[in-house]
Amino acid sequence: MARQYPDDSTTLHTDAYELSMIQTYFEKGIQNKRAIFEVFFRDMPFKNGFAVFAGLQHIIHYIENLHFSETDISYLKETEHFSPEFLNYLENFQFKGTIRSAVEGELVYNQEPILQVEGPLADCQLVETAILNIVNFQTLIATKAARIRSVAGTDAIMEFGTRRAQEFDAAIWGTRAAYIGGFDATSNVRAGKLFGIPISGTHAHALVQTYGNDYEAFKAYAETHRDCVFLVDTYDTIKSGVPSAIRVAKEMGDKINFQGVRIDSGDMAYLSKRVREQLDEAGFKAAKIYASNDLDEKTIMSLKMQNAKIDVWGVGTKLITAFDQPALGAVYKMVAIADDNGQLKDTIKLSNNAEKVSTPGRKQVWRITKKADGKSEGDYVALFDEDPREQSSLYMFHPSYTYINKTVTDFNARPILQTIYSDGRLVYQQPELADIRQLCMDNQESLWPEYKRDLNPQKYPIDLSQRCWDNKMNLIKEIHEYVQNLSFE
Amino acid sequence: MARQYPDDSTTLHTDAYELSMIQTYFEKGIQNKRAIFEVFFRDMPFKNGFAVFAGLQHIIHYIENLHFSETDISYLKETEHFSPEFLNYLENFQFKGTIRSAVEGELVYNQEPILQVEGPLADCQLVETAILNIVNFQTLIATKAARIRSVAGTDAIMEFGTRRAQEFDAAIWGTRAAYIGGFDATSNVRAGKLFGIPISGTHAHALVQTYGNDYEAFKAYAETHRDCVFLVDTYDTIKSGVPSAIRVAKEMGDKINFQGVRIDSGDMAYLSKRVREQLDEAGFKAAKIYASNDLDEKTIMSLKMQNAKIDVWGVGTKLITAFDQPALGAVYKMVAIADDNGQLKDTIKLSNNAEKVSTPGRKQVWRITKKADGKSEGDYVALFDEDPREQSSLYMFHPSYTYINKTVTDFNARPILQTIYSDGRLVYQQPELADIRQLCMDNQESLWPEYKRDLNPQKYPIDLSQRCWDNKMNLIKEIHEYVQNLSFE
Repeated sequence: MARQYPDDSTTLHTDAYELSMIQTYFEKGIQNKRAIFEVFFRDMPFKNGFAVFAGLQHIIHYIENLHFSETDISYLKETEHFSPEFLNYLENFQFKGTIRSAVEGELVYNQEPILQVEGPLADCQLVETAILNIVNFQTLIATKAARIRSVAGTDAIMEFGTRRAQEFDAAIWGTRAAYIGGFDATSNVRAGKLFGIPISGTHAHALVQTYGNDYEAFKAYAETHRDCVFLVDTYDTIKSGVPSAIRVAKEMGDKINFQGVRIDSGDMAYLSKRVREQLDEAGFKAAKIYASNDLDEKTIMSLKMQNAKIDVWGVGTKLITAFDQPALGAVYKMVAIADDNGQLKDTIKLSNNAEKVSTPGRKQVWRITKKADGKSEGDYVALFDEDPREQSSLYMFHPSYTYINKTVTDFNARPILQTIYSDGRLVYQQPELADIRQLCMDNQESLWPEYKRDLNPQKYPIDLSQRCWDNKMNLIKEIHEYVQNLSFE
Repeated sequence: MARQYPDDSTTLHTDAYELSMIQTYFEKGIQNKRAIFEVFFRDMPFKNGFAVFAGLQHIIHYIENLHFSETDISYLKETEHFSPEFLNYLENFQFKGTIRSAVEGELVYNQEPILQVEGPLADCQLVETAILNIVNFQTLIATKAARIRSVAGTDAIMEFGTRRAQEFDAAIWGTRAAYIGGFDATSNVRAGKLFGIPISGTHAHALVQTYGNDYEAFKAYAETHRDCVFLVDTYDTIKSGVPSAIRVAKEMGDKINFQGVRIDSGDMAYLSKRVREQLDEAGFKAAKIYASNDLDEKTIMSLKMQNAKIDVWGVGTKLITAFDQPALGAVYKMVAIADDNGQLKDTIKLSNNAEKVSTPGRKQVWRITKKADGKSEGDYVALFDEDPREQSSLYMFHPSYTYINKTVTDFNARPILQTIYSDGRLVYQQPELADIRQLCMDNQESLWPEYKRDLNPQKYPIDLSQRCWDNKMNLIKEIHEYVQNLSFE
């Protein structure tokens, strides 16, 4: 049974091992050693050509509320895993880290840092779980939404997934991410309140069942609302639903704004064409046809190929759960740690699996575009003290297949990681949500269509700078030699 | 940008159409008409032989806090969709419904009611979205967890998925559902605090990177913790990780409880056998091998078939997102509504798709077992006023293939839907979480093994009573005749 706490906080929303490690750091007196961690994901979600970064708003909210409450501490005490001195340290904990991140609506790619936390080792460690939890989900949904937007063209698309979302937060933050990715509205009223997203929704089958027939139900609705979209498939779309909607629209005339009808089941291609004819014949050429029923980018594309007469798309389950790939898999890896003299030393995590070897060192991602047309040349991942803007030509090469390379001139370079927190202080002002959404659309302008297509897009180049690559190779060699020379006799 | 509200509530966690419909009900004066809605899902999740019901705790929490706050009302006012009289009604809204539900840990099946809301039409309508949102996710995860438990046998299984969960609530409620389904512990500290689930976790690769080598890192950890599980794959599992763990265990002796080592990458079958040999040769035969790395019931089964020497399984992404089927798809359908004289009248939602036709009438689900051995005969879905305990023999038939039938005698019948709320008042006392988990295990005892196997289980019978079936057929006929006779000339 859930215990209720008046001071419940999300500070304990962390994996137990973070606290175990911090206890070691604290008791060894290295909790304030300077460290740098970076977030990256290994593969593009949905094999899309780009991903849309989202989650910063929730991260800021989480960090702003990051302190151990009284009951947090007393719970930790109860577990008997932690010393009184350590609990006292936690009680006084204040986040002092620096967070650099892609901003919301920015396009991001695999194998490049999308967020970076620098600061006291303990601080960096504590926030790992929550940051990954947030970024993994919201970036996934914003990307899925952008895919759906790309096939929907200029049609209105509505997020209708709350009932199928993975609990409350996923519904709320997911619909916000969907809005960033290009959706127009949400069915979730609380998301409307919290984020200012337009809300959308008229009625369900229950209204029709209440009255026992379409006509009376639509009439009752029309008498109590100005904007009307009637759901026509409770009993029989063609024989009852649409004729009833038309009758009510005619009877009510100017008293309502008859926006159209919604179809929620059956063969959408066939039904939408029949319904369009029915509406047109009745003189309602401006009335729109809304569709909802397990839609995603694949079904929308297919319906468009079949010339389905659908104007507005309500998308639920497949979007809000990212059904075809419900996890992004971003990780949080230490890239540098101070030595005993306070000098930062780059670190690496090895693996038998080549793609799983992390790229050491504090880095910045530079988005390289051609001056002439503003179009993308790729991303250039460099060590933090490198600035490609000081170079007139840039040698870019594939970090695995190094023989794939090019030299770029007349380019612009834009840094992707922006400072959000500086030594624990919030220094970034979030734009309005509508502006974030617009930014996301504008960002897609610079991509060639070949990077944007839904199926089998060209791989956008993510290249390492020469220094970054050399640094990685040297560290791999160093560790290999160290392991070879180990002796446990 | 998110707006902050001191009185933020989850009452607006509802689809906009619920409020639109309630406005119609209110303005037509039928908001208090007695109605009955039932929740059911159409297909078994993961094609499993049974599902594990979960979500009641969150539903209770939601209902207990169901009132429109000041800022909820002022937001609704801002939208200009709602009349002042209606907003005044919402401001004074108090939930008066009756909720009957399967209890947590109960086994449930497709095409039967698993939760029922009866009461004023508006009240039933308001709670639809949140109830579905909760039940859909938590039942899915509890079921997935039970699948993983079934292949893990008596091995310890840990829920490690927070970083890949679909936002905060999914991590918290998901790990609680996983515990109900048979997991032993969670990595999420807040879930430990809120629900009393044992927490688990030692250290990550970052600890090793901090010290730059396994030995020093493990030593530091051992000097600051009594229980030690060392993560051995940061640089090289066999050459560095395990020998370092062994050295530290020998050096520390009785000062620590050396529980074992964790492997998080590489070929688990091969590595676990090599690591087992290393530990055994060093005399640590009781030390356990923990594995984590994209595990689920399929990989665990495969590793067991390969005689992998793994004792404890850490399961993340695939469990917490229900990766292979991230949505359950339960729906909420009106089954009866009072007529103008207050008499309940059964209602139906038709569809071109046979399985999507709802089953009308207020129902109870009876779990039928043989008196002799306590084993399952199937579920018997009957109208609410039927009581199979009054019958000596029960005729059970498949609701679609009616020629598949049997007559059961010497049976026990247990009602599945329990009263949780009665006219708005909470009348159910939730058991302790550990008891819910035990109940879930006990419930599986009565199932034949053929219903429980992971792959292609036998279909557990979900049969309608004769009256329930006749009622459905009559209503379908009635609606068909009504539609045929419609005239819009």
